[in-house]
Amino acid sequence: MKLYIVGIGPGGEAGMTIAARAALEKSDIIVGYTVYAELVRRIFPNKEFITTPMRGERKRIMLAFNAAAGGKTVSLVCSGDAGVYGMASPALSLAQKYPGAEVEIIPGVTAALSGAALLGAPLTNDFAVISLSDLLTPRNVIEQRLRGAARGGFAIALYNPASSKRKTHLARACEILLEYRDKTTVCGIVKNIGRDGETARILTLEQLSSADADMFTTVFIGSGETKIINGRMVTPRGYKNV
Amino acid sequence: MKLYIVGIGPGGEAGMTIAARAALEKSDIIVGYTVYAELVRRIFPNKEFITTPMRGERKRIMLAFNAAAGGKTVSLVCSGDAGVYGMASPALSLAQKYPGAEVEIIPGVTAALSGAALLGAPLTNDFAVISLSDLLTPRNVIEQRLRGAARGGFAIALYNPASSKRKTHLARACEILLEYRDKTTVCGIVKNIGRDGETARILTLEQLSSADADMFTTVFIGSGETKIINGRMVTPRGYKNV
Repeated sequence: MKLYIVGIGPGGEAGMTIAARAALEKSDIIVGYTVYAELVRRIFPNKEFITTPMRGERKRIMLAFNAAAGGKTVSLVCSGDAGVYGMASPALSLAQKYPGAEVEIIPGVTAALSGAALLGAPLTNDFAVISLSDLLTPRNVIEQRLRGAARGGFAIALYNPASSKRKTHLARACEILLEYRDKTTVCGIVKNIGRDGETARILTLEQLSSADADMFTTVFIGSGETKIINGRMVTPRGYKNV
Repeated sequence: MKLYIVGIGPGGEAGMTIAARAALEKSDIIVGYTVYAELVRRIFPNKEFITTPMRGERKRIMLAFNAAAGGKTVSLVCSGDAGVYGMASPALSLAQKYPGAEVEIIPGVTAALSGAALLGAPLTNDFAVISLSDLLTPRNVIEQRLRGAARGGFAIALYNPASSKRKTHLARACEILLEYRDKTTVCGIVKNIGRDGETARILTLEQLSSADADMFTTVFIGSGETKIINGRMVTPRGYKNV
């Protein structure tokens, strides 16, 4: 029994790795959150799919292991990477209940990288990735991360800046970052990377705090060195001249 | 004139995105650092290659733009991602000298993601990526980043932990991190990801400080929550139960 945990990248076939496509091709059954499973169904319309709604992660993983236990080759798909806010961790934890299962993690291009490429090169040098979702992480821990990243001088990628129920998280994050960084700090906001309705916009940290964001948005905060060059957001490779 | 800046992933064809392979296929000329260009030559043996040694970044970019200015489609290849410690930033900076050049960035799977997949799921939650190379960044900035990431409670991926000339950087980084994290903190070390001689090992932060590392090594420092589950390095998705 074989279970692949597959990071499919931003969503289209082009952003997927060749290993990810091969794992999906080999699979009898593809399991995923409805939205991402539908993106995969466009590429493999004749596969068998099992889809579950958002927050059904534990159930989704059990369904995938149970399908694999029946002798099938199964892929559990994640948008972006399999590890970064993905299913690899909960799947490896639950794997203890399925001792015969062989689990292979197939990494993918996470939104920090695919969004950065649309904006230019904001994450050239050291960077931090922080989710603003407080579903699984208390707000004080998120604030500690924002402060640690700001003090460390990192360029920052923010995931889950807002959802239908959480509209103020991005403004609060900007408020914290403005304690450490200038209001003119170069920032970027990308939506629907690699999908219909893809947009990328460069703006200041001050403008970012009132920017419109949703659960398909990724936000980039420049370090103090980040510049706009020919309309692109570019962080230099270091502090010394190349 | 078209210049692709292509992140090729860890090195083999399987780790490359379908968009990266398509850009290389469309290219008349492929430009890169000798080691990475040779990895690409195995996949496209009949392409024209221009290779330059390490630290020849500026020259490499000029050669790529000059080839594109002659009407060719050119790919400038980077290992991992095009942005993360890659050529996208210096290429976008130099693009100002070639106003007719159309530059497209193709993101790829950086070593933080491909190495994490080999170890398990160390970067599930918020994480920071830090290079220990002091060629372009002063040591005090690197130490500030290490302290910021440690205080913020991030899982950490370290790039360039050592080279033939820099053997003590990893030990010094561990010394700093041990001020904030327990010596039993779960860590991982991967070498030659996706290439001949690939290895992955889980060890403690104390053991890591004397571990053998080179320029093809990526190091992972767990957050306080990171565990070993069935021999894999796993950071939970959050602080609350899923």
